[in-house]
Amino acid sequence: MNFSSKLIEEAVNEFSKLPGVGKRTALRFVLHLMKQDQTNVSQFGNAFIKLRSELRYCEKCHNVSDKPLCEVCINPHRDQTTVCVVEDIRDVMAIENTQQYRGVYHVLGGIISPMDGIGPSDLSIESLVQKAAANEIKEVIMALSTTMEGDTTNFYIYKRLKEYNLTISTIARGVSIGDELEYADEVTLGRSIVNRTLYENSLTIR
Amino acid sequence: MNFSSKLIEEAVNEFSKLPGVGKRTALRFVLHLMKQDQTNVSQFGNAFIKLRSELRYCEKCHNVSDKPLCEVCINPHRDQTTVCVVEDIRDVMAIENTQQYRGVYHVLGGIISPMDGIGPSDLSIESLVQKAAANEIKEVIMALSTTMEGDTTNFYIYKRLKEYNLTISTIARGVSIGDELEYADEVTLGRSIVNRTLYENSLTIR
Repeated sequence: MNFSSKLIEEAVNEFSKLPGVGKRTALRFVLHLMKQDQTNVSQFGNAFIKLRSELRYCEKCHNVSDKPLCEVCINPHRDQTTVCVVEDIRDVMAIENTQQYRGVYHVLGGIISPMDGIGPSDLSIESLVQKAAANEIKEVIMALSTTMEGDTTNFYIYKRLKEYNLTISTIARGVSIGDELEYADEVTLGRSIVNRTLYENSLTIR
Repeated sequence: MNFSSKLIEEAVNEFSKLPGVGKRTALRFVLHLMKQDQTNVSQFGNAFIKLRSELRYCEKCHNVSDKPLCEVCINPHRDQTTVCVVEDIRDVMAIENTQQYRGVYHVLGGIISPMDGIGPSDLSIESLVQKAAANEIKEVIMALSTTMEGDTTNFYIYKRLKEYNLTISTIARGVSIGDELEYADEVTLGRSIVNRTLYENSLTIR
């Protein structure tokens, strides 16, 4: 594409580095910014610069946090011995929204994905093993995606943790609440039969 | 959504001001930026700030330009008496890509849209009328979208220009090249029959 302006070309290139954004969408964003006030655009650009330079991570669970320890880790009402292992902060937000979990988190910062060049050493797995070795935790709940990468990561962490004296569980997989049985895929439906729960237990989470 | 960090919340809010970007997509962008080097993120943010503060428009056709006159307007090989009226720079880029047009442009900067509060005075229509009044141009080619807003703008400009001695044309509407006739909508197909062209003329544009 010929943008007739170096400035537009640069801005389009920057936007198209975002995941799922092509040149056309990037140009649409740029045209939108061009119509805004200069102060709004400064605020727009600076929000990201500030984010990257000032953002801190919780020293304990690696979740994002404006303070040294995140809100979950400093909360005395949360069970510090139950740790839910998740990929990134989106998963923390999703689980927090359910209001069903009273333990703490451990954010890996990604999942093992050889295709993208991400190995175990790129993730915060060592600090989880150290927590287990220090006898700080009693249960680890694996809450990763059911993809090949998620399963690989699950298995790697399981192997690293199984020598310690703790319970390792994964979140339940099954038919979504509100879903019609006939439309559920075979793997999910099969697993939901194998891992069936007592009816009385299913009542308590309502 | 609870982002557990003011910085993330700010960045998500800024991204979700872009057209077609919701909170979830914005968060995906923010997580992507968080994984980048600080220099990359500075470059990202500054590209937009620089764009807004340094971008200039061509004094003659209102197209974006790094110099006082754009590349099309200063090109001596372009016919300065034929003016193609378009909505924004995307349309200029689209027409330039065809390599079929040897005239110049006039960029309105939008189309008349009462729903969005955009009236004729918000667009650069006066300068087009002045060009016509000064006898600088011989033909005006309307190349706006075939929406209600586009038709309104077409008609408004037609009314303003018809008193001057110039040809006012619109780009041809018809069945796209490569399209199957049976799938063309009735309005397009009907118009393509009414505005049929001589077969020998259709050969010259290949």
